[in-house]
Amino acid sequence: MSEQTTEAASDAARQLLGVLGCGEAFGFHTMAEASARSEHFDQAVVLMQMAAEHLNGYQRVRERLAGEGADADALIGSFAGPLSRYHARTAPTNEYEALLKAYVGTGIAADFVREMASRLDEDTNAFVVEVLAEPQADELVVARLRSVMADDQALAGPMALWGRRLMGEALSQAQRVAADRPDLLALILGPSDLEGFQQMVARMTASHSARMRALGLYP
Amino acid sequence: MSEQTTEAASDAARQLLGVLGCGEAFGFHTMAEASARSEHFDQAVVLMQMAAEHLNGYQRVRERLAGEGADADALIGSFAGPLSRYHARTAPTNEYEALLKAYVGTGIAADFVREMASRLDEDTNAFVVEVLAEPQADELVVARLRSVMADDQALAGPMALWGRRLMGEALSQAQRVAADRPDLLALILGPSDLEGFQQMVARMTASHSARMRALGLYP
Repeated sequence: MSEQTTEAASDAARQLLGVLGCGEAFGFHTMAEASARSEHFDQAVVLMQMAAEHLNGYQRVRERLAGEGADADALIGSFAGPLSRYHARTAPTNEYEALLKAYVGTGIAADFVREMASRLDEDTNAFVVEVLAEPQADELVVARLRSVMADDQALAGPMALWGRRLMGEALSQAQRVAADRPDLLALILGPSDLEGFQQMVARMTASHSARMRALGLYP
Repeated sequence: MSEQTTEAASDAARQLLGVLGCGEAFGFHTMAEASARSEHFDQAVVLMQMAAEHLNGYQRVRERLAGEGADADALIGSFAGPLSRYHARTAPTNEYEALLKAYVGTGIAADFVREMASRLDEDTNAFVVEVLAEPQADELVVARLRSVMADDQALAGPMALWGRRLMGEALSQAQRVAADRPDLLALILGPSDLEGFQQMVARMTASHSARMRALGLYP
C-alpha cells in the first residue's frame, strides 16, 4: 500500500472506532430503557448488566483511540447526531417495543459495524469483533417476546412492523453517517462500485430476517 | 443480647440490605434516565458510569446476602413495589428534573438507608456506608443545574417545587416500606417511641435542605 492509502485506511479505522464507541454508548441507553420497562425484576437486572457491558465497550474503544493519540471524545461525540436521531425516531412506548429494539436494533448496528470492520486491517477488525462479542440478552429477550406473543396473538402484527421500522431507520441513519464521511463511504462501497453496498445491505437484511424469524415473526 | 434479640437484629440487617440492594438497582435507572436526557455527550457518559456504580452496588449487596444464605433475589425483589411506586410518581419530564432527581432523590434514599444502618451491628453498618460511598455525579449535576438556572431565572420555582415533591414521595414510600416490616420499623423507631423517627426525619430534612441550598434553591 502506498503511504497515502495507508493513511486513508487508518483514518477509516479511527472513524469506524468512533462509530463503534458512540454506538456502544447509545447501546447502554437501549438496554437501560428495556430494563426500566421490564415487568419482572430479574429481567430488569439482566438488561442492566447488558447496559453495563455496552458502557464497558464504549470505554474500551475510547481507551484504544486515546492510546493511538486521537481525540477520542471529539471523534466519538461526532457521531452522536445521527445516532440520537435514530434513537429519537425509534423511542419505544412499551416493554415489547423496548425489548425488540434491544434485540433487533442492537443486532443491526453490530452487523453494520462488523461489515465495515471486515474491510479494515486485521488488528482493528479483531478488536471490533471482540468488542461486539460482548454478552447479549438475546436468549432472554427472544423467550420473553415469544411468550407474550403466544399469549396475545394480536401482538405479532405490530411487532413485525416495529422490526421493519427499526431496520429502516437504522439503514437510513447509517447511510447518512457514511454520506458525510468519505473514508467510511469508501469502506462500504469497496474499491469498485455500488455493488459492494448492495451486497452489504443484502447480508444485513438476511441477518435481520433471521432475528425476526427467531421470534416467529415474518421479517 | 438475648438470642431472640440477636435474631431480630439480624433479620433487620437482612431486610435493610434488601432495601439497599433494591434501591441500588433502581438508582441505576435514575442515573440512566438522567444520562438519556443529557444534552451533552460527556455529561451523559458520566451519568452512565454512575448508573454502572449503582449496578455494582446492587451486585455487592446481592453477593453478601447470598453468602449469608439468604434468598437474595426474593429479598431484594420484595422491595420493588414501593420503590417502583416512588419512581413512577417522580418520573422526570426533562433533563433538569432528571438531574435533580439523580442528585436529590439519590441523596434522600442514601440518607434513609444510612440512618437505619447506624442502628445495626458495626459490620453491617460499615458495609452499607461503603456501598453508599460509591462515586456520585453531585459536582457535575450541581454545576449544570446552577448554570441552567442562572440562564433561565424562571426555572428556580419549578425546581424548588420538584425538590419538595421528591422529598415528599420518598418519605411517603419509606414510611410504607417500614410500616409493612416490623423489623425495619423497629430500626426507625428505636427502642423508645416516635421521638427517634421525628429526629430521623429532621436529620434527613436538614441534609435535603443542604443539597437544595447547594443549588441556590430554597428548600
